Amino acid sequence: MRPTIAMGVPWMDNKITMAHGSGGLLAHELVEQVFIKHLGNPTLSALEDASNIELADARGQLLGQPVMTTDSYVVSPIFFPGGDIGRLSICGTVNDLSMRGARPLYLTAGFVLQEGLPLEELERVVASMAATAQEAGVRIVAGDTKVVERGSADKLFINTAGIGLVPPGVQVSASRARPGDVVLLSGTVGDHGLAIMTQREGLRFTSPIRSDCAPLNGLVADMLATCPDIHVLRDPTRGGLATTLNELADQSAVGIAVDERSVPIHESVRAASELLGLDPLYVANEGKLIAIVATDDAERVLAAMRQHPLGREAARIGRIVEEHPRRVVLNTILGTHRLLDMLTGEQLPRIC
Amino acid sequence: MRPTIAMGVPWMDNKITMAHGSGGLLAHELVEQVFIKHLGNPTLSALEDASNIELADARGQLLGQPVMTTDSYVVSPIFFPGGDIGRLSICGTVNDLSMRGARPLYLTAGFVLQEGLPLEELERVVASMAATAQEAGVRIVAGDTKVVERGSADKLFINTAGIGLVPPGVQVSASRARPGDVVLLSGTVGDHGLAIMTQREGLRFTSPIRSDCAPLNGLVADMLATCPDIHVLRDPTRGGLATTLNELADQSAVGIAVDERSVPIHESVRAASELLGLDPLYVANEGKLIAIVATDDAERVLAAMRQHPLGREAARIGRIVEEHPRRVVLNTILGTHRLLDMLTGEQLPRIC
Repeated sequence: MRPTIAMGVPWMDNKITMAHGSGGLLAHELVEQVFIKHLGNPTLSALEDASNIELADARGQLLGQPVMTTDSYVVSPIFFPGGDIGRLSICGTVNDLSMRGARPLYLTAGFVLQEGLPLEELERVVASMAATAQEAGVRIVAGDTKVVERGSADKLFINTAGIGLVPPGVQVSASRARPGDVVLLSGTVGDHGLAIMTQREGLRFTSPIRSDCAPLNGLVADMLATCPDIHVLRDPTRGGLATTLNELADQSAVGIAVDERSVPIHESVRAASELLGLDPLYVANEGKLIAIVATDDAERVLAAMRQHPLGREAARIGRIVEEHPRRVVLNTILGTHRLLDMLTGEQLPRIC
Repeated sequence: MRPTIAMGVPWMDNKITMAHGSGGLLAHELVEQVFIKHLGNPTLSALEDASNIELADARGQLLGQPVMTTDSYVVSPIFFPGGDIGRLSICGTVNDLSMRGARPLYLTAGFVLQEGLPLEELERVVASMAATAQEAGVRIVAGDTKVVERGSADKLFINTAGIGLVPPGVQVSASRARPGDVVLLSGTVGDHGLAIMTQREGLRFTSPIRSDCAPLNGLVADMLATCPDIHVLRDPTRGGLATTLNELADQSAVGIAVDERSVPIHESVRAASELLGLDPLYVANEGKLIAIVATDDAERVLAAMRQHPLGREAARIGRIVEEHPRRVVLNTILGTHRLLDMLTGEQLPRIC
């Protein structure tokens, strides 16, 4: 897929760098050169190669096809406007399952706690997980706790893994974007990453930036009810909208044309981005999704999204094209065209 | 169950201490006071309260009842005689599923890497995971990587979560020990913990101590093939044999009488324990299991264990009694009786 030789970034050292965790190019190289090499494809996958095992209950009622996912959460600070590491750890995994079109069912939670962590903080995080799990309608069925010495971890890290069932007939995949399809976005971008960064930098704005951190399974269920044949769903987390669109262009072997004017961005996010020298198109989101659908389905799906509280600002932001395969091109506000590349190097460490 | 007021250990501070990760009394209190309080029962549980959903394939063929588990691995050093953090992360989760009588199927793997970790070390760990997964016959179906700054983690932490299916008819549970039952142990205790400790302390013995780290699903399958009605299975990890027996006594509300003479311990482990002032009965194992079975089944199950490479030194170590409910009593080599309590406070930090 992408070149596996590093591009001026410190692979030379043969050491892990912060950029390996960015969700961008180096992160992709790490996955390919170490994880895929040894473990096969470690990305979210159906529970069988054949990918066609359908589970039924004991009475033979078809339940769907199981999918599993996992994510570790190392966000710093652990409390931020609009959320905390606990809420994030539920939303992230619920959303990963939802992006397969699956109905998330059960989650596990593993904690690495640093010696000295105030119990009150741990309890706030765990209570937030419980509330978010209830909001998303999922159950946490197994847990584990490890403690490491002061200086061996930063407050706490959480891992959640989850299992869900893809309903019969649903076939959402990052490889199903086709020329002519329409690209929809469920709302504003940049909110999560900027909420974290402004918190870290101690910046204050008249309208504070809040993380968009939310479980998207309800929104996805409404969209699939309107149109079971959604081609692609993906949440633009690490690396932001731009990196995620590049992944989709690559996996579907198509070009994507995005209209900059149509991408919703909160005014405060735009202002903070300029101040911090960040591009909101590359900043992580935790409660947004990209949907790619056939032209004929676009209006119907968009309407369903706008009816849901988490999709009120949904917009049509671009289309799939035959030109420039595996490339994302932005039609800018200025009327020019600009290649929107994958994030290279590190932008925002420990954003999730 | 157990008193939830701390016993002279620093709950006072309301901060997490290393002892909260020991697997002993404080760890139990943390689970009860924070995790169970908010999340309900976070221990390995069947995927439904009703606990009676049986899954079938699309043709109606009964597959069994699904169970899920998770574990985080923070062992230090990450390479040790007999294993490494990668092998441990597969064995631990495979074994947790096996102790429910489940056939482990699919695992997820989440990595938290420290900036500066040599890629060569990461690759060795991942290759070891792949080899161990193959040995155990499980597949890793999803993965995630996060990177944190130098000083925010110690080399790398791994979380694995797993799903398995309990075959129809198998009903293994920590609450099924009954007076008259026999307690079996699959081999020597103390090997894993002492391998780590001697490595940390730089001790050398003529016969080096190796971790027993191994996937137990094959052994369990053989045991269940001989006797589907095994009452209890449990792997004595953190807190060791003594703590695990206490958990079982508690959950089944029975007494357990253990014959010290019959508990197999390698000579080198015994010597190192004395040197380090440790009791091998409280030291973690990563490739051993306790089985509790009806008297009539004991010989048959023991024979099946001894036929398996991981059960060659299996022994009958005690029995379930009506006397002293929820207490474990050791009949010592000296002919005296001694209460074998749960581990209190911290013994060996970061042993798994």
